[in-house]
Formats: sequence, structure tokens, C-alpha cells
Amino acid sequence: MKLYSYFRSSAAYRVRIVLSLKGLEVDYRYIHMLKDGGQQHAADYHAVNPMKLVPALEIEGGILTQSLAICEYLDETHPDPALLPGSAADRAYVRAIAAAIACEIHPLNNLRVLAYLSSELGLDKPTRDVWYRHWIAEGLTGVEALVARSGKAGDYCFGDTPTLADAFLVPQLANARRFACDLAAYPTLTAIEQRAILSPAFAAAAPEAQGDVEH
Amino acid sequence: MKLYSYFRSSAAYRVRIVLSLKGLEVDYRYIHMLKDGGQQHAADYHAVNPMKLVPALEIEGGILTQSLAICEYLDETHPDPALLPGSAADRAYVRAIAAAIACEIHPLNNLRVLAYLSSELGLDKPTRDVWYRHWIAEGLTGVEALVARSGKAGDYCFGDTPTLADAFLVPQLANARRFACDLAAYPTLTAIEQRAILSPAFAAAAPEAQGDVEH
Repeated sequence: MKLYSYFRSSAAYRVRIVLSLKGLEVDYRYIHMLKDGGQQHAADYHAVNPMKLVPALEIEGGILTQSLAICEYLDETHPDPALLPGSAADRAYVRAIAAAIACEIHPLNNLRVLAYLSSELGLDKPTRDVWYRHWIAEGLTGVEALVARSGKAGDYCFGDTPTLADAFLVPQLANARRFACDLAAYPTLTAIEQRAILSPAFAAAAPEAQGDVEH
Repeated sequence: MKLYSYFRSSAAYRVRIVLSLKGLEVDYRYIHMLKDGGQQHAADYHAVNPMKLVPALEIEGGILTQSLAICEYLDETHPDPALLPGSAADRAYVRAIAAAIACEIHPLNNLRVLAYLSSELGLDKPTRDVWYRHWIAEGLTGVEALVARSGKAGDYCFGDTPTLADAFLVPQLANARRFACDLAAYPTLTAIEQRAILSPAFAAAAPEAQGDVEH
């Protein structure tokens, strides 16, 4: 398998965590989202992912897009360790956390949106930072409450082993830290994150461990 | 089961389509997202969904949030008719379409974002409409290409029967039409949509068929 990735993309980071948790080795093709006007906009990358986003996962016979879909695929085709719980209701809880991050937080703060705020709306960096932190706070407040009220969390969002929820949570919190968001109001989430990043599987997937990292 | 819904919410519309395709009856609790400063902001609704969004689905023993997670739950617990294909790669294709809509298009154009553009950034309606149509065009261009290149589409996004992909596509195109977006560049998607909305299951889930509809 070949993963189209960018070290700083939190959506690619999610997939890297899942690959890492499952002990899967893949080839990497790095798509630099800032160089050359954004390599995700190149015509040859459109053939890979017409959404012009990373990640994309090349498998035998096709290319998969969207981190949620890719992670579900990897969990179905490489079921050990399972990253979704056994009961349908518990799976819905785990998927809801992943989706809350993937659908309500990250889309508002990714590169293309920040670029639009700057180039089309003419917003300066302080105003863009307010926007960024607003959606982080809105979203994480909700996710913190979802996890805290569930009674399902342990060392991780569900019990004491990682699930898809953690694979989405850790990259989102990394983004929030990069933008200096105040995370004091999310003690459950940050406690899970701080445990997770100590594990070798999460560490190997981190931006700073990638072949295309820039410091 | 009880569905917290708003007739105009395209995320609730997705869940209504899935319920309808599976022939499931639920009780409705309508959350008017514009009245009373937005009923999704009321404290009693926070107890239902801390994300302050619809839909939410109350089941025995809990409340499920996030349309993607709810639709997967309904498909797992009521497998007939199946709304995901049989092979992992095909399921990834269907989920990618649903996720592309749920993660890349709708989050940028929903009520709370349009409200922020207006109240916090002071943008007028024409500028907000440009924003709206920009993300519709970006997203649908990608989804059209994903579906067209797949070789998997028939009457619906995957083959000749509805899947989760169609349950996400139809509400998104309804939104786009409401904002007068030009859809000429998406012939595959609109052909699927126009077939789907003729079917009784999709028609019953449409905004105009809801108990809380306003004209």
C-alpha cells in the first residue's frame, strides 16, 4: 500500500496512527501542501484524489480517499487489533467522536479554509487565529462532554486500548497546541492524549517522526 | 427510537433517509434551529447533544450523535436493506463519498458558520453566498470525479440500489439548490439525485414532508 501524506496534515496523521497500531508498513509519497502552490493542486495528484486533499491510500486495484473511510477499511481488512468496539452502540460512540472531529472541527481550520480567509476575505492573522480557536473551543467542548458523560472512557476514549476515536483525537489536539489554543477546559481529552503519545505506535505516526518533516 | 431533527438540517435529512429506506418508524422531537436564538443552544438540548447540533438519535440506554455514526449504527442494527456494499474496498468508496460531503462540504456551509461570517466577520449576504458556492463547487467537483471515475455507479452512487452515499448526496444537493448553486458541472451526481428523489423512501425524508416544515 502507498500512503499519500503530508507530515503536518492531521487527516493523514489519523491514518498513520491506524497503520501504526496495526503494525502495517506502507510506502510513502509525500505531498507538500505549501510548496509549488500546494502539490495537492497538481494535475497528477488530482488523478489520485480529485478532492485535492491528503491522505489517499493506494491499494491493489484502486485508491481510497477520506481518512474516515480509509481507517474503517484498514480496520476491516486488518482486524487485529480491533479499533472499533464489539457492540453497535459502542461503535456509534467511537465513530461519533471521530466524526465530531472530522466533521465539526478540522474542516473549519484546515489549510484551504485559512487560505480563503486570508486571500478572499482579507483577514489578518489575529482574526484568523480567533476563528481557529473559536471552532476548536466549540468542538472540543462538545467532544469533552461526549466522552466524559459516556462512562466508557478509560486510558483511552473507549476503555483502556486505542480505538478510531483516539486516532482522530490525538492529531486534533496536536493542531490545537500548534495554534496555542487553551486546552484547560478539556481535562479528559488531554489526559487521554498525553497517555497516547507516550505509546510507540502513536509516536511513530507523529508529524516529527515523518520522512518529510520540517522543523 | 426518537430522532431530534430540524426539517432544514441536511444532516438530519441523511438520517431520515436511512430510517425511511429501512422502513423504521421513530418519534420526532423537533429542534428549531432559528427560533428562540436556536433551540439547539438550550441547556436541555445540550444534555442530549453537547455538540449543539442535530441530529441526535435516542435509543434504549443512550443517545447517539453525528449523522455518520448514526447511519452506520442503523445499518448494523437493521441490516435489511444493506446500505453498504459487500467488499471492504467498495464500502470504502461509499464511505468516502459520504465523508467527502460530511467533512468537506457541509461543515463549511452550515448555520453556525454562516452566522459567524455574518455576526463576527460582518460579511454581507452576497459575500456569504460566494463563500457558500465556493465550497459547494470545490466539494462537488471532487465528488463528481470520485463517482464518475469509480466505474461503480449505476442508478445510484454504487450500483442500482441506494447506499449511505446517496443518503448523504441527496440532502447536500438539496442545500446547493436552495442556495441557487450552478450544478451543471455535476451531471453524474444530479442524475442520481433526480432518480432518488422520485422514490417514496427518499420523498418521505425530504424537508417538505416533515412535521416541522415551514414554507
